[in-house]
Amino acid sequence: MSDLPDSELLPLCLEHNFWTWSAQAQVQPIPIQRARGVYFWDIHGKRYLDFNSMVMCVNIGHGDERVVEAIARQARELAFAGPQMATRPRALLGKLLAEITPPGLTKFLYTLGGADANENAIKLARGYTGRWKILTRYRSYHGATYGAIAATGDPRRLAWEPLTMPGVVHFLDPYRYRSTFHRTCPDLPEEEFTQDYLNHLEEVIQYEGPQTIAAILLETVTGTNGVIIPPRGYLEGVRALCDRYGILLICDEVMSGFGRTGAWFAVEHYGVVPDLMTMAKGLTSGYAPLGAVAMKPEIAAYYNERVYQGGLTYNGHPISLAAAIATIEVMKEDHLVERARATGEVLAEMLAELMDRHPSVGEVRSIGLFGAIELVRNRQTREPLAPYNGSSPEMMALRRFLLDRGLFLYTHWNVVLIIPPLIITPEQLAEGFAILDEGLQITDRAVEA
Amino acid sequence: MSDLPDSELLPLCLEHNFWTWSAQAQVQPIPIQRARGVYFWDIHGKRYLDFNSMVMCVNIGHGDERVVEAIARQARELAFAGPQMATRPRALLGKLLAEITPPGLTKFLYTLGGADANENAIKLARGYTGRWKILTRYRSYHGATYGAIAATGDPRRLAWEPLTMPGVVHFLDPYRYRSTFHRTCPDLPEEEFTQDYLNHLEEVIQYEGPQTIAAILLETVTGTNGVIIPPRGYLEGVRALCDRYGILLICDEVMSGFGRTGAWFAVEHYGVVPDLMTMAKGLTSGYAPLGAVAMKPEIAAYYNERVYQGGLTYNGHPISLAAAIATIEVMKEDHLVERARATGEVLAEMLAELMDRHPSVGEVRSIGLFGAIELVRNRQTREPLAPYNGSSPEMMALRRFLLDRGLFLYTHWNVVLIIPPLIITPEQLAEGFAILDEGLQITDRAVEA
Repeated sequence: MSDLPDSELLPLCLEHNFWTWSAQAQVQPIPIQRARGVYFWDIHGKRYLDFNSMVMCVNIGHGDERVVEAIARQARELAFAGPQMATRPRALLGKLLAEITPPGLTKFLYTLGGADANENAIKLARGYTGRWKILTRYRSYHGATYGAIAATGDPRRLAWEPLTMPGVVHFLDPYRYRSTFHRTCPDLPEEEFTQDYLNHLEEVIQYEGPQTIAAILLETVTGTNGVIIPPRGYLEGVRALCDRYGILLICDEVMSGFGRTGAWFAVEHYGVVPDLMTMAKGLTSGYAPLGAVAMKPEIAAYYNERVYQGGLTYNGHPISLAAAIATIEVMKEDHLVERARATGEVLAEMLAELMDRHPSVGEVRSIGLFGAIELVRNRQTREPLAPYNGSSPEMMALRRFLLDRGLFLYTHWNVVLIIPPLIITPEQLAEGFAILDEGLQITDRAVEA
Repeated sequence: MSDLPDSELLPLCLEHNFWTWSAQAQVQPIPIQRARGVYFWDIHGKRYLDFNSMVMCVNIGHGDERVVEAIARQARELAFAGPQMATRPRALLGKLLAEITPPGLTKFLYTLGGADANENAIKLARGYTGRWKILTRYRSYHGATYGAIAATGDPRRLAWEPLTMPGVVHFLDPYRYRSTFHRTCPDLPEEEFTQDYLNHLEEVIQYEGPQTIAAILLETVTGTNGVIIPPRGYLEGVRALCDRYGILLICDEVMSGFGRTGAWFAVEHYGVVPDLMTMAKGLTSGYAPLGAVAMKPEIAAYYNERVYQGGLTYNGHPISLAAAIATIEVMKEDHLVERARATGEVLAEMLAELMDRHPSVGEVRSIGLFGAIELVRNRQTREPLAPYNGSSPEMMALRRFLLDRGLFLYTHWNVVLIIPPLIITPEQLAEGFAILDEGLQITDRAVEA
C-alpha cells in the first residue's frame, strides 16, 4: 500500500469517499500519516495534540505496540470465527471484564460498537421486563443506528423522526448550569437540586405508567452534550426509582468507561450497579471496532430456554476481542485509571484558572480526564456563545485557531470538550491549555461589557 | 494469551458470554483452535470442512497470510483514525471499489457491517428522494439493528415488532418453487412467471402510492432464506419500475457480493446497476468488521451542502479498510471470481446428482458457489421437511449427523445452504457431498411412499 504518493492521499479520499455527519462539499479531512502517544501527524509533518482521543476513544494513547502486536498475533492465530464459536479471546475477555466491571455484572454480549450495544441493551430490557418504553434524557447521545438514534435525546435524532424506533420517552437531565427551573434559586443546596430532578423523573414515570417502562437508559456522565456530571445523590436516586418501579437501569458508559473519569467506570463514583451497562470506545481504545453489553446473570438467564433474537456477523470478532484484552492489560500495567484520576486533578485546576482568566468562560466541568468549557457572551445571563444546536462566528473562529495551532479537540455548540488520552502528562495538558488560553481571547472579545 | 489451557476455553466462554440468536442454556459452541483454507479445527483436533464460509463471509478461505499481514502492517502504521480523517487505506479502497463495482457507483460510505450499511442506504434514499417508505420482500434478511430488522422480511423481525423502524412495506419474492399463485401452472414459461411478480410489485407500488416510496431494497440473490435466484428478466424489470416511478433501487449484496455468485456482484448477471448497493461479509472475508454503501454520485451530491446525519465511531476503521484492500487483491491475484464461476458449475452438477439420488430433495438451486438444497416429505405436494420458521426431528438429525462427520454448514428450516469459500476445489466439494449423500438417507426415510 506504500505505492500511493502522499500528494494523492487527500484527493483520492475526496473522490471516492462519502463522509458521515458532513456536508460533502465542505469536508476538510486531515490527511493523517501517523499517531503516537497523545499526538498525531498529517502528511505535511504538522503535529496535532489530541485533546479528543481521536473520537473520545483512544484512552491508552496512539500506537501502543502492546495492542498492535496483540492484533497482529490474533490475526495470525485465528483472524475470524463466527459469533457462535468459543474462542480463546472470548474466554479471556469475559473473565477480564467480569473483574473490572461493577460486581454483579457477569455476562457479556459483544457488539460492533456503542450504538448496537445500546440497541441490544434495549432489546434485552424489553424482553426481560415484558415492557416496552425506554426513558432517556434530552441531552444525550446513544448512537446512530435506527434504534440508538431514537434513544438519543440531542438534535441528531431529528433528521430521522418520526421514522425511528418507537417507544422512547425523553426526560430532563439535572444540568444545573442551564436548569430551566432553577434560574431564580442559584443557592439551592445540591441535595435539593438533585431531589427536584428525581421528583421530575418519578413524575414522568407516573405519567407514562411504570408498568409500561422497561428501562431508564442514561449516560452515567453525559458526553458530547457537554460532560454533564450527575449531582450528588442523583444516580443513587435513579437506581432507587428503578428498584421501586421494577424498571431496569441501563448505564451507557461508551464514553465514560475505561478510566475516562478516573475510575474503570463512572458508576463507581456513585456506588451504583446498573442492570445493564454498555461500553465501546475505550474498551479497545479504538484499535479495533468493539462494543459490549454487560448484564446481570438473571437477565441472561431469562434467555436460557428462549432464543435471544439478535446478533450480527461480527459480534465477538477475535481480533477486536484480542485488542480489548490487550487494551485492558495496558491500562492495568500502566495504572491508567489511577493516572487519569491524578491528572484529572491537574485538569480541574487548569480549567479553574482558565475560567479566572477569561470572561467568556461561563462554567468549567470535569471528572477525571473528561472536561468541558462552557462559553458564554454574558456570565450573568449565561447566554451561550452559540445557540442550542447551532454555531456562531466566534465558535468557528476559535475552532479554526485551535486547529491551526495544532490542538485537536471537539466542540459542541458553545462547549469545548477536553477528552485527552489518559496517558497525557501535566506538561502536555499545559501545552494544550496554553493554546486554549490564547484562543479564548477570540471568544472574550464577544463578551458583552 | 497462550496461558489459557485448552480445557478452560469452553467453560470460561460459557461462564461469561451471552450468545446472540441463541437460548443460552442450549448453546453448544465449537471451541475453535485454528482455521486454514476451507477447514477449521477445534481444540480436540477435530477437523471441520467449512461449507458456510463461517458466516457466509470467508470467501477467500481461512488464514490467508496476505490479509493477515496487511492487518498487522496497518496496525503498526496507523491502527486507528477517526471517520473524519483522510487515511491511506481509505484512499486506496475507494479507488479499488470504484473499479470492481458496477459502473456509475463511485462514492462509498464505510460502515461496520451489513446491517448498518442497509440502514445508511435507507437513510440516503429517504433523504435524497424526500419519500419515506421502503419496499422489501417477505423472504429477506437485511440485518438485526432496529432499522435493518424492520426491513427484514423473515420472522427474525417479529420479536421486536411493532417497535422497529416504521415505513417498511413487504412484498412477495418470485420464489418459483413455493409461489402461492402458481401451484396449478407448473409449465408457465419463466418470462410469464417473472411478469406476474413484476405486476405484483407494480400493484403494491400503486396501492402504496409511488410518491411515498423512497426505495426498493432487495437481496440481489436472497441468501439465508434459501438462495432464491431471480428469474429471467426480474431484476431488469424491477429496475424499470424504479425508473418509471422515481424510486431508488438498493441492492443488498452483503452475501451475494465479492465473487459468491461467480461475478464480483450478483447484479452483473442481470446487467442492472442499482442506485445504492450495500456490501459487507466478503468485502473483508470476515478478517475484520466492515461494510459499505456504494452510491451514484448524484446521491452523494445531494449532501454536498446538507449535512448527512449519520455515522459511527468506527466508520472507515483503518485496519478494516486495509483488510478489505488485501482481500480484494487476493481475489484478483488468485482469480477467485473466475474460480467461483468454474467451481460453481461443478457444484451445480453435484447438486443435480444429489437430487437424482435422494427423494427427500425437492429442489436444488445454485448460482456460482451459492447453493441450496430444499428438503421435502413429498416431491409432489412439496411439503417441506420442516415448517416455515420451524424445525423437525429429521432436520435436527441431519444437522447433528453432518456436524458429527465434520461438515459445517447452515440450515434454514427445510433448506440446506452450501456457501463454501471460493477457493474450494472440486475434490473438497466432493468430500462434503459424500457426507451429505450419507446424511440425506436420514431425510429420505421421512419421505412418504
